[in-house]
Amino acid sequence: MKIIIAGAGAMGSRFGLMLHQAGNEVTLVDGWQDHVKAIKENGLKANFNGEEVTAHLAIEWQQELSSLKTETELVVLFTKAMQLDQMLQDIQPVLSENTKVLCLLNGIGHEDIIASYVPEQNIFIGNTMWTAGIEGPGRVKLFGEGSVELQNFAKGQEEAAIELAKILSQAGLNAKYSDNILYSIYRKACVNGTMNGLCTILDTNMAGFGATKFADEMVTKIVNEFAEIAAQEEVFLDVEEVIAHIETCFDPELIGLHYPSMYQDLIKHNRLTEIDYINGAVSRKGKKYHVPTPYCDFLTQLIHSKEEILHAQ
Amino acid sequence: MKIIIAGAGAMGSRFGLMLHQAGNEVTLVDGWQDHVKAIKENGLKANFNGEEVTAHLAIEWQQELSSLKTETELVVLFTKAMQLDQMLQDIQPVLSENTKVLCLLNGIGHEDIIASYVPEQNIFIGNTMWTAGIEGPGRVKLFGEGSVELQNFAKGQEEAAIELAKILSQAGLNAKYSDNILYSIYRKACVNGTMNGLCTILDTNMAGFGATKFADEMVTKIVNEFAEIAAQEEVFLDVEEVIAHIETCFDPELIGLHYPSMYQDLIKHNRLTEIDYINGAVSRKGKKYHVPTPYCDFLTQLIHSKEEILHAQ
Repeated sequence: MKIIIAGAGAMGSRFGLMLHQAGNEVTLVDGWQDHVKAIKENGLKANFNGEEVTAHLAIEWQQELSSLKTETELVVLFTKAMQLDQMLQDIQPVLSENTKVLCLLNGIGHEDIIASYVPEQNIFIGNTMWTAGIEGPGRVKLFGEGSVELQNFAKGQEEAAIELAKILSQAGLNAKYSDNILYSIYRKACVNGTMNGLCTILDTNMAGFGATKFADEMVTKIVNEFAEIAAQEEVFLDVEEVIAHIETCFDPELIGLHYPSMYQDLIKHNRLTEIDYINGAVSRKGKKYHVPTPYCDFLTQLIHSKEEILHAQ
Repeated sequence: MKIIIAGAGAMGSRFGLMLHQAGNEVTLVDGWQDHVKAIKENGLKANFNGEEVTAHLAIEWQQELSSLKTETELVVLFTKAMQLDQMLQDIQPVLSENTKVLCLLNGIGHEDIIASYVPEQNIFIGNTMWTAGIEGPGRVKLFGEGSVELQNFAKGQEEAAIELAKILSQAGLNAKYSDNILYSIYRKACVNGTMNGLCTILDTNMAGFGATKFADEMVTKIVNEFAEIAAQEEVFLDVEEVIAHIETCFDPELIGLHYPSMYQDLIKHNRLTEIDYINGAVSRKGKKYHVPTPYCDFLTQLIHSKEEILHAQ
């Protein structure tokens, strides 16, 4: 299958590499020039569960896609949320009316943006539990196991979604069709909507946050706001289960000592965060549905202020 | 006049010193042993507008007040808010049924605590614009000018309040009677309820916070919560004026480069904050009056979490 991975960061590289190894014709597309150059010259280098792998994958710089002549069958979107719109503009030349577009970004509400560039029947949305890390231009670290859930965005495309899941699974990506992908997306967004912003603003890891007296109260308030917004979209979260799931992150013997990705982006690397696509998305939807979401509003504002104070880029 | 200054930190020392210099019989009371010992041995040392002053003021350790035999006419409360209750318990032996008690603490709602120890007709509440700094045990720095406003808590005690203001003014403390002290207290609490918590959680000074895009929106949300609670107590804040007043703090040519007291307490000195008597008081009153105060709730929770994470004491 002819596949473009739009956004070849850590996760995009994992999916690109595994789909390539399974025999698909994969092209990576990315906006980071050093990364593109390194992969063009030396291939993608991965520490893949302890084994050193070099994959000679095609890669293109996203500003120069017009020269790319390919009848793309599938695009997998894996940008940072704030880069999604630009990527969709840049990949226009390689989209045909039959190109399927699978969105695996973190956060909620991306389908609204994708729908302005892609016909609804071609949109598929998903959620992944795989992890990946980038170690430098052209180098990634891929450890552990994961899974993917995905669903068609437009009614009537169930078979196409099942087919997509099969292609990913043939590459070892452990994908399955979901008949309620929004539930999984909202559930995962609740984890990100609490751990990311709160650990970042409090400058601590998940165990450090979880040990504080008001942790449960803050998590509960935020998850309830997510749940009220989800309910407006006919997604009915099991709030207690979601809170219990989030609070397993506090355990220092599990992943409690880990600093969430937003912390790493902003505090460690001075990068802009994805807050607008997590708590900020809930705030925007809250305004749209006339549902108050003060905790998400305030947390979004605090994170944006912190970005400005740290001159994040 | 026989006066006890209950809480002889920076501000208590200023009031004690000035009232002493004006000929009153002043006794300081404090819980910090090194400070008490230094003043007992060497007097209170002050840099008073550039001049070195040593005042041989009486001082007692608050845990040992039972031996203090004095018919106290006035107690001026100047503890940290979270030490108020303990101080009121400790000064019981020196209170008579005629002892007036003037509360000049920062924050709101202290009268509820005081009223469980002192008859209402003896309670006076006030607000001061004086500043003071402590430099070490027995040493303070007193610069600039200030003022005091105060009012009787119980109806019918207006004359006594006017008399109290006169005594303070005779000591140069520039005090006047107010017929709406709660307005001044709420207005000042709005400054503390925004600058203190927000600069502390964002780890920045007032100019740094003020320069961020969402500063005005966060300040506006918080001030509106204070105003809704104040309105429940028949105090009607001019919200626009209060916000404009707060936002003068952003100016780096005025006090913008200053880090608010809560920042200094928590981030610099790892001390517990007064958040429960500022935003936390609004939260408690919100529950009592059934008025939602989510920004104050969340900010109080964040500051308490930060206290725990930093092991503040």
